[in-house]
Parts: sequence; C-alpha cells; structure tokens
Amino acid sequence: MVMKVHGGVASTATMRVFATLYEKDLEFEFVPVDLRAGEHKKEPFLALNPFGQVPAFEDGDLKLFESRAITRYIAHAYADKGTPLVCEGKPMATVGVWMEVEAHQFDTFASKLQWELVYKPMFGMAMDAAVVEENEPKLAKVLDVYEARLSQSKYLGCDCFTLADLHHLPTLTNLMGTPLKKLFDARPKVSAWVADIMARPAWAKVLAMRSQK
Amino acid sequence: MVMKVHGGVASTATMRVFATLYEKDLEFEFVPVDLRAGEHKKEPFLALNPFGQVPAFEDGDLKLFESRAITRYIAHAYADKGTPLVCEGKPMATVGVWMEVEAHQFDTFASKLQWELVYKPMFGMAMDAAVVEENEPKLAKVLDVYEARLSQSKYLGCDCFTLADLHHLPTLTNLMGTPLKKLFDARPKVSAWVADIMARPAWAKVLAMRSQK
Ligand SMILES: N[C@@H](CCC(=O)N[C@@H](CS)C(=O)NCC(=O)O)C(=O)O
Ligand SMILES: N[C@@H](CCC(=O)N[C@@H](CS)C(=O)NCC(=O)O)C(=O)O
Repeated sequence: MVMKVHGGVASTATMRVFATLYEKDLEFEFVPVDLRAGEHKKEPFLALNPFGQVPAFEDGDLKLFESRAITRYIAHAYADKGTPLVCEGKPMATVGVWMEVEAHQFDTFASKLQWELVYKPMFGMAMDAAVVEENEPKLAKVLDVYEARLSQSKYLGCDCFTLADLHHLPTLTNLMGTPLKKLFDARPKVSAWVADIMARPAWAKVLAMRSQK
Repeated sequence: MVMKVHGGVASTATMRVFATLYEKDLEFEFVPVDLRAGEHKKEPFLALNPFGQVPAFEDGDLKLFESRAITRYIAHAYADKGTPLVCEGKPMATVGVWMEVEAHQFDTFASKLQWELVYKPMFGMAMDAAVVEENEPKLAKVLDVYEARLSQSKYLGCDCFTLADLHHLPTLTNLMGTPLKKLFDARPKVSAWVADIMARPAWAKVLAMRSQK
C-alpha cells in the first residue's frame, strides 16, 4: 500500500514531508486538503489529526501527524532508501540538537516573519511593522550562530545533509523571496548553505508541485 | 567520566534533563549556571551552547544542548538502564508524534501562561491579563485532545510512560500551582494522568533539588 500525505502544496509543514519522501525516492499519494473550505477542521480529517492541522500521513495502518515526527519516521523506517537524512549513535545526537534548533530557535522567529512578509500580503492583510522590527534582529542573531556552526561543519547536523537542514527549507525559501534575503546573503557560510540545500533536486520537485497548483 | 548537566534547578528545560537522568538511574554532576549574573550569555558557557540558554550537557567528549535533544540522546544511549522512556519501530513513531505535540501544541500556550502566572509574579512584574485571556482557551482545546487521547491510551505516546509524558512535567507542575489547575482538574483522564506522572519518584527528586536551592 502506497503512503499517503494529506495536506496542501503551499503548506510549509506539508512541504517538509514531501521533501523527505522525494529525498528518499519513495512513492506516495498526495491527498489535497482544502484549507480554504476548512476541511482540516472537520471529519474525516480530524480523525487523522485531532489538532486540525496539515499534514497528516498514513503508511498502511500507521497514522501520524506533526511534520517533524513524520519526517523522522520516514528517515528511520526507510533508512536503506535514497539520501540517509539521519545517522546512528553519537553523531545522531548532534543532528538531534540541530533539529531542535530549527524548531525552537530558527522557526520561532522565522515563522513570525514569514507570516508578516509572505502570508499576510498574499491574503491581502496589512503587515505589522512592529513584529518585523522585533523579530528581524532575533533571526539575525540565530543566523550568526549558524554562520559559526557552518564554518566548522558542512551542514548543520554533521558533514552530510540531514533532516536538520531539510526542515528549514520551506520557511527559508519563503523568506528568500522577501527583503530579509539580505540577512542570509550577508553571511557567507549561511549563504552557501542556503544555495546548496535549495538546489537539491528533491526540493525542486516540491516547488514544482506548488507552482502547478 | 560522569555526565554533566549545566543549568539551573528552577529552569524548566534543565528539569527535563534531570527527570530523564533520575528515571534512568544514572549518576551525573550538576554544574549550576548563575542566570541572574548572566553567566549563560558569556564564555565559557557559550562554548557549550552558542544560543546562551540552559541546559547544556556533557557525556565524555559529546557536548549537547536543547533539552529535548539531550533527553532523547540519554534515552537511546542508555536504553538498558532504568525506565525505557522510548521504544523501537512503529510504536516509537507515535511516541514521536506526541513529543512534537508537547513542543508545538502544549508548550506554545503553556509556556506563555507560565510566564504570566508563575515567573512574572516571582520577578515582581505585572501580569498581562490579555495574554492569559488569549492563551487559556487555546490550552483548554489542547487538553480536550489530550482527554480523548488518554481515553484510548494510558499515556500520551503509548501504554507506558515515555519522554512524550516526561517533557510536560516542569511546565505542567508550575501551572498546577496556578488558577489554571482547574483546566486539568475538569478533565478526568487528564487529571489522572497529571497525578500519575507527577507522582513518579524521579520527579520528586527533581523537585527536591529545586526546593533545596
Ligand atoms: N507543528 C505542526 C504545524 C502544522 C501547521 O501549522 N500546519 C498549518 C499549515 S502549514 C495549518 O494546518 N494551519 C491551519 C491551522 O492551524 O488551522 C507541524 O509541523 O505539522
Ligand atoms: N529550547 C530550549 C529552551 C531553553 C531555555 O529557554 N532555557 C531558559 C531557562 S528554562 C533560559 O536559558 N533562559 C535564559 C535566556 O533565554 O536568556 C531547551 O529546551 O533547552
């Protein structure tokens, strides 16, 4: 039975799961959830994710939600396919640190900035300049730490591309289309890392799904 | 060489690591970091965590930070000691989902409420009633999902106590000392789960460290 991803092609959390499946060269079925119609807040979707958010995922009997739990499952369950994305033992502990950094340091500020600079304009809502002013220097400080980390290590988690890098892709790509691109461009190691991970063929496939909608 | 935990006895993120070490019956050395003196924003602490937050952790040569990455490392690396806390294969995928739920659903609201209702009063700062009013119903909705989940499963991740439960303990315990206790008490399965996990001997040891300071 083929795996199923329920979600939206423009949902950053869903895109994380697509990117993982493409990296792993795994077949899957995409089941679009109509967020504008509020399908994610009703049955049958709530049976897949009681918090009413996309994505949700099925692999046979196993039903999962929360994008980062799904990607971790796929990476471990299909360890022998495509790009490794995770590793074993002590190096994985460090990859785990940088996965937490994405979720608790980078995303905290990046997702607020993305809301103001990408989604609000898209929905015709007014941007709140105070939120941008507050969060931009905080994101810049996170990127200073990334610059130092990427001077010691080719990727965030270790010397190869892992989930710790991949999880950044959706929000990072969105921010690169805003004036905040300058924060990434100003840091040579960060800028090379952004160019490298955004150029991955698996990521191009995710972006192609989004532009075909 | 004994493991080292750098942090504070009243820091919720540090308490997660202590709880894991006590559950695993592992010896460790506690290295207090003076947050009031700003020690976490200076060297040598920044070499352990460039984001300048506690806890940081050392196991021989391995240096980690981010509480949930540390607990995951300990649970896997010392799988044969004390309480299992994690499991293998498909059941672990579901434990992983509920670990993400703690971080991205529960903690999002609970940590804002804890700041207003526990830390601000402690620091002599004025509580912002609007923040409480906004986040209390959001936490209540999360607890509705927990009530349904705990009707099907003894613990959040599976039928045994895992990191998915443990990660809640510090903030949960703090909120149980505020008027928001009523949100937990009003839900029978949630309330039984709270009583059960708060009664664990390992958790009592963490609270004893805090009250001895
Ligand atoms: N922590 C969740 C976040 C999921 C999430 O926020 N999904 C968004 C789309 S990217 C959504 O469903 N938004 C609608 C809503 O929250 O009501 C994950 O990583 O899966
Ligand atoms: N996501 C981090 C959060 C760590 C954190 O917020 N630590 C607090 C104490 S509980 C801290 O160091 N606060 C001081 C600061 O952020 O400057 C983790 O789980 O370890």
